[in-house]
Amino acid sequence: MTKILDDAESFASAALAGFSKAYGRYVHLVAGGVVRATQVPDGKVSVIVGGGSGHYPAFAGYVGPGLADAAVAGEIFASPSTAGIARVCRRASHGGGILLGFGNYAGDVLNFGVAAERLRAEGIDVRIVEVTDDVASAPADQHEKRRGIAGDFPVFKIAGAAAEAGLALDAVERIARHANDSTRSFGVAFGGCTLPGAGEPLFTVPKGRMALGLGIHGEPGIEERDLATATELATLLVDTLLREKPENRTRAAVLLNGLGATKYEELFVLWDAIETKLRAEGIEMIGAEVGELVTSLDMQGCSLTLTWLDDELERYWLAPCDTPAFRRGDIIATTAAPSVAGQHDEAIDYPPASAVSRKDAACLAGLFEAIAQALGDAESALGAMDALAGDGDHGQGMRRGVNAARTAIDLAVQGGAGAATALAVAGDAWADRAGGTSGAIWGLLLRSWSRWLSDDTGIDSHAVARGARAALDDVMRLGGARPGDKTLVDAFLPFVETLEGAIAAQQSLPAAWNAAAAASHKAAEATAPLAPRLGRARPLAQRSIGHPDPGATSLALVAQTIGKRLDG
Amino acid sequence: MTKILDDAESFASAALAGFSKAYGRYVHLVAGGVVRATQVPDGKVSVIVGGGSGHYPAFAGYVGPGLADAAVAGEIFASPSTAGIARVCRRASHGGGILLGFGNYAGDVLNFGVAAERLRAEGIDVRIVEVTDDVASAPADQHEKRRGIAGDFPVFKIAGAAAEAGLALDAVERIARHANDSTRSFGVAFGGCTLPGAGEPLFTVPKGRMALGLGIHGEPGIEERDLATATELATLLVDTLLREKPENRTRAAVLLNGLGATKYEELFVLWDAIETKLRAEGIEMIGAEVGELVTSLDMQGCSLTLTWLDDELERYWLAPCDTPAFRRGDIIATTAAPSVAGQHDEAIDYPPASAVSRKDAACLAGLFEAIAQALGDAESALGAMDALAGDGDHGQGMRRGVNAARTAIDLAVQGGAGAATALAVAGDAWADRAGGTSGAIWGLLLRSWSRWLSDDTGIDSHAVARGARAALDDVMRLGGARPGDKTLVDAFLPFVETLEGAIAAQQSLPAAWNAAAAASHKAAEATAPLAPRLGRARPLAQRSIGHPDPGATSLALVAQTIGKRLDG
Repeated sequence: MTKILDDAESFASAALAGFSKAYGRYVHLVAGGVVRATQVPDGKVSVIVGGGSGHYPAFAGYVGPGLADAAVAGEIFASPSTAGIARVCRRASHGGGILLGFGNYAGDVLNFGVAAERLRAEGIDVRIVEVTDDVASAPADQHEKRRGIAGDFPVFKIAGAAAEAGLALDAVERIARHANDSTRSFGVAFGGCTLPGAGEPLFTVPKGRMALGLGIHGEPGIEERDLATATELATLLVDTLLREKPENRTRAAVLLNGLGATKYEELFVLWDAIETKLRAEGIEMIGAEVGELVTSLDMQGCSLTLTWLDDELERYWLAPCDTPAFRRGDIIATTAAPSVAGQHDEAIDYPPASAVSRKDAACLAGLFEAIAQALGDAESALGAMDALAGDGDHGQGMRRGVNAARTAIDLAVQGGAGAATALAVAGDAWADRAGGTSGAIWGLLLRSWSRWLSDDTGIDSHAVARGARAALDDVMRLGGARPGDKTLVDAFLPFVETLEGAIAAQQSLPAAWNAAAAASHKAAEATAPLAPRLGRARPLAQRSIGHPDPGATSLALVAQTIGKRLDG
Repeated sequence: MTKILDDAESFASAALAGFSKAYGRYVHLVAGGVVRATQVPDGKVSVIVGGGSGHYPAFAGYVGPGLADAAVAGEIFASPSTAGIARVCRRASHGGGILLGFGNYAGDVLNFGVAAERLRAEGIDVRIVEVTDDVASAPADQHEKRRGIAGDFPVFKIAGAAAEAGLALDAVERIARHANDSTRSFGVAFGGCTLPGAGEPLFTVPKGRMALGLGIHGEPGIEERDLATATELATLLVDTLLREKPENRTRAAVLLNGLGATKYEELFVLWDAIETKLRAEGIEMIGAEVGELVTSLDMQGCSLTLTWLDDELERYWLAPCDTPAFRRGDIIATTAAPSVAGQHDEAIDYPPASAVSRKDAACLAGLFEAIAQALGDAESALGAMDALAGDGDHGQGMRRGVNAARTAIDLAVQGGAGAATALAVAGDAWADRAGGTSGAIWGLLLRSWSRWLSDDTGIDSHAVARGARAALDDVMRLGGARPGDKTLVDAFLPFVETLEGAIAAQQSLPAAWNAAAAASHKAAEATAPLAPRLGRARPLAQRSIGHPDPGATSLALVAQTIGKRLDG
């Protein structure tokens, strides 16, 4: 949805003005477009591109050394005028003639064509290359009737590099046409874009569906389907393009292009699958690009473009260029570092342990088995409690964490680890897998506690109490929570104090532990979730007033589960 | 709306894997993050940044020479784990110590803090800089409690440049803290983002409203207001930040950051207003950036960041860097070209004309006055006709075109132009201002026609007929429309044929013209709009079967209007 504007009528020209201010080192604003702000050698062929606005970085973002000499900008999704094109061309003419590049749309064909005739009448040699890459818009044997979509970019990039290399107009035209003949794109859309000033999108795609072959202005596609997974979508895009693979080519420039509201992360997820698929098909990917190179305001969707390369096209595709939106080439000289692929992150090599400590470690592993069972049973209840004030993932996080801890401690026991090492390893695994704040807190709690255990001597109750105090201190110090903040600390503090008192009073460890667990349970019940504060909390906290805090509740649950096991 | 994924659980790691494949020349993928793929000098301070995923290019996109040495990535909007941070740090440690940079969020503070303690215990010197730039999240006197949003970028950029320059850890830490102390951001949101796998956005902003100070994960803002214009929004953002301007600074690094679904064109429109406002406030903008540097999936909104610069901060802000998402520095050596600002595009200098031709030009100007009146009256009817098959802007385009033509021909008459020049000038103005296909066609039609007129001799009826034929030929040749395609040609062809016949039969120009106009009117009535074809037509054409074509209708209307005037 286009939200930022003063008025719809001036939107395209204000955007171009703002662009020119932001990138004044690259471009000068002229009526109807932008021209390079840097000197260009006399006699160089000018590559001038353009079309409607609303496709940034197409086309103004392409202006700079190694790519375009100028860009002409029409109103949003509307061809620039004949006079505008002619004016920008006169400004960007350097005596070597002009190659005009644009997508194959009726208005652009007309306006660029008429402008070219007018410029020729003024003695400027002008050639035209219409980009026709969209396989969805006409059959393969009518390539010249197809629309131009993201294939604009590789065709202009290659033409711009050829002109920068000093080639004459005939050669630049030949190479640009060759690039276009070698370029195919196919796209999908998930949702429409909204024109500046309009209250509704230009078109919509039903929820859970995707439109195949929809153009970059919402032109009719070829089919509507249920939304695919990333892997299915990769297969669809690649298979469609490979149907027109030239027999004698295996190298391709690749562009995975986002249309505006489909974000980088989604494009990278898709690229992971596309790269795998293209590699499996034996295609050598050259200078692949993943990003927004031809957009359609805030349209949701993407397209895949392949330009089948020979040596000449590859050279110009990879040549350096420096524009506001796209740069190739070295800024800082670097040397590749050795690949780290396949290296193991940490070899598991447990320190030596006594037999008694190895037995204690096995007991601890048994406790984690019981805790995993209890937290698994409580997952949805903890999630529901968390959803009242937070994002509802506490139960999930605890389940992921304890299961990771259990696997790690089982491995440690099998590997001969003592009690201190086994508990530390379990804490690290918990934090690593659970993620988020509660995962970090639990990992810290277990690791701090483990420092008071030993890999030599057996567990004694005083060490357990000291470990509990150390864990509480670290959680408060590094986690920043104080008693009364309605966090796990509210249940952990009475646990530690009760445990210390009972141990000091010579109670057995099981009895002391169960007294402490009961105290933590009582305290957890008494909590209510924190009010919204700085951080990620959403303004729902008032709904959960009077409900216990999920962090305190799960700590009490863990304490009680261990207590039962110690009793048994 | 996040649409491309295989499953929500693997989304963040698949995105990081795809990113690493696309940018293998910059980064190597390791468990939990990415590290530079290029060699780093021994003893260099490592700048390592990170946080939750979903903010690309934060943080993996910042890794490369001149910026970060590594990035740690958590799950979507969740802190990376302590173990993950420690692992990535060990990989990216080069003996000079580590500066850890991240935004001030509870989970990140905890996990990065615990990881730092663990690394210190291993003998690695680790310093921490929490970014706290969001003025909406705490009062000015509690800067250290604020959240980190887009200010992450300038702080990390400056720290990375200081480390690249070979400074020791103490100095890099000092400069990074100084950069953070000098950085302020303020943002607005228009709509929420959707987590991978979720069916609904994380939060919503009511239609026509905007949320002030909303965080990059939808944290509570400070206020909700009616949507502002671009100029109002620029004032709001700048004024809010200038309230915390340090007294002794006038230079600032500026970042206008898009959150994901607010597109480049909108940001440029806003930048046009912000640049004007900051300049008026006497702020010198240094290395300004407009684009997506810290996003929030497909959230709609933007933020403005100012980093108040002294000489040291400015040096590191402007230093070269080369990363997947951000590059500074020369790739191709260039020299600035002279500014073209203020140059006039075309001096209006009409060729000399005879008195009789100047009188004819004045008559033509009178015709344009009548046509403007008629097309103004018909604007909404023509628009409604066009909306049945197209985008409904035909009436608007004709009105804009004829008014521009009328202004131009009036100026030409005042400037002493003859009939041929006056008509050519009117055609150019029409095409330039009306835009789109119909504007281009009308411009072409008038200019072609003008070639058979003269600036010397008076208008004769044979020249008018020959001009009409030339205009028809050019429109058909360059516009690509043939009779029966349901365009303006369907009304223009019978007009020309009837006019030619009547002139050949020695009828007076008014009589011949009116016969031709009647023929065109009849033909226009007989048209129905074209079926959807390749191009921008939307699939609504079937609704307009049986309705006349707006292009043919407006041509007939113009012809009849002229006919009446010639009769009068």
